[in-house]
Amino acid sequence: MQYPEIWLRDNCQCGKCYMQQTRSRLPHGWNSLDTAVQVQQLGWCAERQALQIEWHDGHQSSYAYSWLKERDFSPANRTRYLRDFYRPEPRHWSGQQFAQIRREFQYSELLSSDTALLEWLHHLAVYGLALVKQAPLEADVLRQLCERVGFMRRTTYGDEWSVRAQPGASNYAYLAAPLPLHTDMPYFEYKPGVTLLHTLEQSDSPGGWNLLSDAFHVADLLRQRHPSAFRVLSETPVDWADIGSDHGLSFHNIWRAPVINVDASGRYQRINHSIPQRDSHFSVPAEQVRPWYEAMALFMRLAGDEACTFKTTPGDVLTFDNLRMVHGRTGYDDTDRNVRHIVGAFLDWDIAYSRWRVLRHAHGCCK
Amino acid sequence: MQYPEIWLRDNCQCGKCYMQQTRSRLPHGWNSLDTAVQVQQLGWCAERQALQIEWHDGHQSSYAYSWLKERDFSPANRTRYLRDFYRPEPRHWSGQQFAQIRREFQYSELLSSDTALLEWLHHLAVYGLALVKQAPLEADVLRQLCERVGFMRRTTYGDEWSVRAQPGASNYAYLAAPLPLHTDMPYFEYKPGVTLLHTLEQSDSPGGWNLLSDAFHVADLLRQRHPSAFRVLSETPVDWADIGSDHGLSFHNIWRAPVINVDASGRYQRINHSIPQRDSHFSVPAEQVRPWYEAMALFMRLAGDEACTFKTTPGDVLTFDNLRMVHGRTGYDDTDRNVRHIVGAFLDWDIAYSRWRVLRHAHGCCK
Repeated sequence: MQYPEIWLRDNCQCGKCYMQQTRSRLPHGWNSLDTAVQVQQLGWCAERQALQIEWHDGHQSSYAYSWLKERDFSPANRTRYLRDFYRPEPRHWSGQQFAQIRREFQYSELLSSDTALLEWLHHLAVYGLALVKQAPLEADVLRQLCERVGFMRRTTYGDEWSVRAQPGASNYAYLAAPLPLHTDMPYFEYKPGVTLLHTLEQSDSPGGWNLLSDAFHVADLLRQRHPSAFRVLSETPVDWADIGSDHGLSFHNIWRAPVINVDASGRYQRINHSIPQRDSHFSVPAEQVRPWYEAMALFMRLAGDEACTFKTTPGDVLTFDNLRMVHGRTGYDDTDRNVRHIVGAFLDWDIAYSRWRVLRHAHGCCK
Repeated sequence: MQYPEIWLRDNCQCGKCYMQQTRSRLPHGWNSLDTAVQVQQLGWCAERQALQIEWHDGHQSSYAYSWLKERDFSPANRTRYLRDFYRPEPRHWSGQQFAQIRREFQYSELLSSDTALLEWLHHLAVYGLALVKQAPLEADVLRQLCERVGFMRRTTYGDEWSVRAQPGASNYAYLAAPLPLHTDMPYFEYKPGVTLLHTLEQSDSPGGWNLLSDAFHVADLLRQRHPSAFRVLSETPVDWADIGSDHGLSFHNIWRAPVINVDASGRYQRINHSIPQRDSHFSVPAEQVRPWYEAMALFMRLAGDEACTFKTTPGDVLTFDNLRMVHGRTGYDDTDRNVRHIVGAFLDWDIAYSRWRVLRHAHGCCK
């Protein structure tokens, strides 16, 4: 166990430095912060199981052993904190592994049991995909589910939206044609994190099958097999766009970002991909254009090869990580007597992880 | 003017390749995409002012001159597109320049005039700060303003929140003590983009002054004068956190990110800073801790030196870029007879830029 002195001083738990009611440090300590602060005397109170420090300037601090242990700067404890407390480690999967990672949750249990709710959120965070079964064929299913977690993420299409074949639809998803693999709303800087799709009616025609592919796994394959294509797709900004109007609100959304977004340490942040929502503007030097198309063709072929397929039935709620998974569906017949009707909504990962932490804490999974 | 062949083919505007009603390319072109596609014959139709192409496989395309010009891959046109169409270039300012960049907008004009609305959004995007004057002392002012743009950004504190001195407050902002410079909600990955603060009642005591500092300018200063401190603050992840409950929803929000966030090309993405909302967990190797505190002390001193000060009066709506500005207030007396009451709400930049583009297009500012 190791602790830097300045960090201990900054996190003194006494009533002058820390306010219990707001669960936060008081700011005025920074008015006279001495980054070279030194411990004058160190003691251990066995009765209170606490470390006691007297500082150079006479200030006294006390830290409970359990509090310190949780915040140990050792590499092992930092790894534990990141995986068990901050966010679980994602596990990427190939199309062939779908049967192993596939897991079903009962809608009524998610509404009534915190354990079930936690398991669903955990599975969704780790594998990016979970199926909810036996939801009623009612309009408020997604709202109920989202409110168990926190609240829905509103977008320019409102809180909820219907995917139904519409002649003259203003959005490509609202046609009965095949919908190739894509992520939802790549044109938002703050892209919705979790997509929820509730099947109210399903077409009896042979089509309408769901396609889903773990694009983090696809990116892994690309990184291994075609490193230069990986670099092109993770470095070339693409103009994602959506122009239209809904509920009386006109919008012109644009976000410029690569298909594969990695952070400074090489971890995937998000995948952007949608053929119809890629702008005709492509604001990069002309010589970068053809290599991008070549890399993209590879990515799309691999994503197709790695897709799992299934067909939802009425009462299913398909939930997946929209920063990670690409999804689509095969074409279907749609007539007055053979309708497919899906209701969709979004949740943000900020809100989903917050709930995951609260539930884990309540169940003693972490401190 | 220059255009790659594969890009032209991918953006063919004919009815088989592009769907006018959805304003997007049709996806099936990718089923047989030939990235080495070649122009067979090139022509110019003077009457339709359009470029005509016959491709190697016999497919024919036509592109209007105005459409092509807008999408020219030349460096000059790409720069124009990024600044005039995508997002305006921010201009950073020092505390001494506050009088020059300060601009006031009338609430009633923002509600009735699209030109005024566009000017406000533009000023906010470029300078990160704008004052709205003469708003009524009513509860729905921020909702009206946000709905002129699009819609409010909900958080774990709801759509709107009141900042009022409360004994026993669960959030540090709800005390009458001085509130040091900070950004709102650094603990969200999807941090609210624009903060709106409506002054309903103002304390007559000498305190309660607003402090605001352009933290992008502060980061510029740090980068020039203390490059190693800049590197530390832009590379060391910090655990931002908020634990509590509101409207019956318990939350435990955490986001790990540096104070200064830059993208791969060195442009600022966002600033995170809040003393009470910095977690006691600090998940970095112990040897990075003291250098971080030293760099942070420099950043905070510069931010204080560069702050502008003013005191809002009832009816003012202070609006600022929460990804960029740090804000705070001096302490004030708060008694039953001398109340300060601020209502706050958020907008996201995705929604604000969307409206900016729609308004600019309507006013012929860009194509």
